Amino acid sequence: MTLKLASIVESLASDFNARCYGDQNVEIDGLAPLLHATPSQLSFLSGSKYLAQLPLSKAACVIVSPAFEAVARQRGVCVVADDPYHYFARVTQLWKQQHTPKRVAAIHVTASIDPLAKIGKNVAIGAFSVVAAGAQIADGVQIAEHCVIGEGASIGCDTRLAARATLMDGCRIGERCILHPGVVIGADGFGFAAHQGRWEKIEQLGSVHVGNDVEIGANTCIDRGALQDTVIEDGVKLDNLIQIGHNVRIGAHTAMAGCVGVAGSATIGAHCTIGGGAIVLGHLTLADGVHISAASVVTRSILKAGNYTGFFPLDDNATWEKNAVTLKHLHGLRERIKQLEKNL
Amino acid sequence: MTLKLASIVESLASDFNARCYGDQNVEIDGLAPLLHATPSQLSFLSGSKYLAQLPLSKAACVIVSPAFEAVARQRGVCVVADDPYHYFARVTQLWKQQHTPKRVAAIHVTASIDPLAKIGKNVAIGAFSVVAAGAQIADGVQIAEHCVIGEGASIGCDTRLAARATLMDGCRIGERCILHPGVVIGADGFGFAAHQGRWEKIEQLGSVHVGNDVEIGANTCIDRGALQDTVIEDGVKLDNLIQIGHNVRIGAHTAMAGCVGVAGSATIGAHCTIGGGAIVLGHLTLADGVHISAASVVTRSILKAGNYTGFFPLDDNATWEKNAVTLKHLHGLRERIKQLEKNL
Amino acid sequence: MTLKLASIVESLASDFNARCYGDQNVEIDGLAPLLHATPSQLSFLSGSKYLAQLPLSKAACVIVSPAFEAVARQRGVCVVADDPYHYFARVTQLWKQQHTPKRVAAIHVTASIDPLAKIGKNVAIGAFSVVAAGAQIADGVQIAEHCVIGEGASIGCDTRLAARATLMDGCRIGERCILHPGVVIGADGFGFAAHQGRWEKIEQLGSVHVGNDVEIGANTCIDRGALQDTVIEDGVKLDNLIQIGHNVRIGAHTAMAGCVGVAGSATIGAHCTIGGGAIVLGHLTLADGVHISAASVVTRSILKAGNYTGFFPLDDNATWEKNAVTLKHLHGLRERIKQLEKNL
Repeated sequence: MTLKLASIVESLASDFNARCYGDQNVEIDGLAPLLHATPSQLSFLSGSKYLAQLPLSKAACVIVSPAFEAVARQRGVCVVADDPYHYFARVTQLWKQQHTPKRVAAIHVTASIDPLAKIGKNVAIGAFSVVAAGAQIADGVQIAEHCVIGEGASIGCDTRLAARATLMDGCRIGERCILHPGVVIGADGFGFAAHQGRWEKIEQLGSVHVGNDVEIGANTCIDRGALQDTVIEDGVKLDNLIQIGHNVRIGAHTAMAGCVGVAGSATIGAHCTIGGGAIVLGHLTLADGVHISAASVVTRSILKAGNYTGFFPLDDNATWEKNAVTLKHLHGLRERIKQLEKNL
Repeated sequence: MTLKLASIVESLASDFNARCYGDQNVEIDGLAPLLHATPSQLSFLSGSKYLAQLPLSKAACVIVSPAFEAVARQRGVCVVADDPYHYFARVTQLWKQQHTPKRVAAIHVTASIDPLAKIGKNVAIGAFSVVAAGAQIADGVQIAEHCVIGEGASIGCDTRLAARATLMDGCRIGERCILHPGVVIGADGFGFAAHQGRWEKIEQLGSVHVGNDVEIGANTCIDRGALQDTVIEDGVKLDNLIQIGHNVRIGAHTAMAGCVGVAGSATIGAHCTIGGGAIVLGHLTLADGVHISAASVVTRSILKAGNYTGFFPLDDNATWEKNAVTLKHLHGLRERIKQLEKNL
Repeated sequence: MTLKLASIVESLASDFNARCYGDQNVEIDGLAPLLHATPSQLSFLSGSKYLAQLPLSKAACVIVSPAFEAVARQRGVCVVADDPYHYFARVTQLWKQQHTPKRVAAIHVTASIDPLAKIGKNVAIGAFSVVAAGAQIADGVQIAEHCVIGEGASIGCDTRLAARATLMDGCRIGERCILHPGVVIGADGFGFAAHQGRWEKIEQLGSVHVGNDVEIGANTCIDRGALQDTVIEDGVKLDNLIQIGHNVRIGAHTAMAGCVGVAGSATIGAHCTIGGGAIVLGHLTLADGVHISAASVVTRSILKAGNYTGFFPLDDNATWEKNAVTLKHLHGLRERIKQLEKNL
């Protein structure tokens, strides 16, 4: 299935101030990176880093920013847009929409829907999915196979759950969210009172509240709050295998890469980014616009927007070992420097 | 649904030497932190850190330790208990118990139970769960939806499996355990023999043995042993997304926060705590009472109880970068200090 | 069920140049480590590290390398093989094969198989598993309970999926692979274009291509590519709870331990090993034969085979804290050393 370049350009014309140069009659049969694109594929130049690849690309058409209009036009057909990566994102959406088979929204015969669940219009529920009593599934929701929706849980309009997503009792998800396979929303937070060498369970009486336009990656877990709700605000994007502890609040449009762990009662601002594998300790606050590098450990509140990092630099094993051994005596080295300064 | 304060106090009277001051006739409709509690909610003061919040709390009643009795009584109704956090934990349990709808233990019509499985009395099994031949499910066990119990696996009395928990062939879980959604017990350990540039699989012939009163967080994995069993002793608490390798033994009442990884054949003592994201290498031993900070890497046995840490401190990006670059020459710096000392 | 030692030795005779000394008539009823083995169990000595245990072992027979033949024969029955660990691996396979009940390959009555799926000969599909339209399941494939196979996905001969493995639309797995429970292959990669403070989704139009003889651990996730495929080459072994981002390519026979995260568009060579909890950043290249230690962070391409490490060494908490504080001023210390050298 192909799309005419002209129809792509026209579809996005109302949202972008973009210009297309060259023959728009070409049939596009796919999207590809510059060097891989065939003469029937669309590509894009996201920044100057890949500029050298532009003249070499065989793509049918390349999306570029105004800065690269001249060189792009010299190569051949191009779309010039203020934000080519944003334009490209919208093309992928258009492509997906055109290439996803239209299905009638249907509830699979094997799905187990409690009669006391409230199911909206145009809802799809896949094979073997379970919807418990009191759950509310709004219009246009798509639930794939093997999902479990707990008692009193609610899902907003047009949200999509991939296979094996689980939403526990009383948890609420907003509109247009995407939950990938294996997501667990609303398992018990990790709360225990130490007592005579044992752990007494603190029942987790809160819930999880996820806003609108949130995307949650495969096998990611968001725990329910101890007393109040764990809150994920609008537009948050979480990658795979992330752990969000109880009572955490994540501000709007914050994004976290895979394998991040956020401990209980951390409050993370809006428009933050947390790199893959980073650990955020509990009971602390990150301001809006804080950016944490991958694999860093946040041990204190950060009240000022900016970029923060903390991981051991990689080295060949022998060099690392020499430096690591010395590091264990670093404080002593400082004392020796002090002494030298004094003696001089 | 509300609970009279008097009935809460009375329920816990036999286990705690606690005193309640003020009017116990108030109806409690929830539990909340000090500053969020309404005049019909119960709260607690766990330590002096939040003492300043105590006089400001609108809570119907606050649980405090004897040290804060005076100030608590000045504020209003209070419960004075030796260990207020423990008391509070028990209140959450009471609350959950009172507010969870009583259901008849039942086996869902869609559950697939092998005729050769042995199911105890008062067992609940949810929709689409599978129990294989030879599995033994003791009295009072609750298995939610979409669980898979392998051949010859066994589950002790009153243990609860949340949706999508998986217990593989031959694995045994004790009594009163809680498994959260997506838990995988008994997948193959990661064992291969290198041979001519390929990996020859070592079949994992052991199993997993989980003791009593163990709680296992969402999507956490505990691998089966290579030859003998992986063992999780009584009272262990594991948070979400933890990886426990084959042949590991975790001592009683040890707790691990989210995203911890424990490599194969590690032996961890009793009453240890492992912070979130920490990595414990294989074939080593931690004594009882070892506490590992979050995101630390345990590379050697620790035979002495105590607190151990090892992660790079976070800094603003520019400062980190300067220090990280210097760190790569740390050993050389030490040599230069030595030289300076010699020359002086 | 027991196996006569002679029959084990004979089964492996064609593949190994091994000699058995002593009475091969003994019935073996299990495999065990040297010190745990009973007089009816088989054991092995993998290297000189455990040599002191050899004379103490009660095992019926011990597999050793030629270097330890003398001491092994002095102890009793033994098999002498060039690579005893490889020999042992094959014994575990033989053991598993002999002790796994033979079942007729069958499609469970509750499985939901689309009529447009193509199912090979001798295929087993477990309870409640779902196979969508256009999926191709080759001969000898075993799919356990609660698996979900998306539209147009394909699975090669003799591959085994454990319970709750998920293969999304269009993803392809090769022959003789093993997927453990909870694996998610083909969830969307984490791709967004920042636009006016929000994240615009980049639809992930690629797929995942997994080669032959690949093993993938429990709850591990491999994302589909953005435009092209994420590729896992032949013989790769991934442990549990690993995250593989979109467009990643992992070379043949590379192995990764648990909790590793590989960010998008990383290209990892063949015959690499990545230790548990390591993080590999995106858009970089590792050459063949690169070995990354556990918990290390790979921030740049590594074009030379070898061993690389980068994590903060563990210390008792007080020592760590002193050194960590000093580390934040390391660059300044270097400046002071320079000054001292100048002044001298």
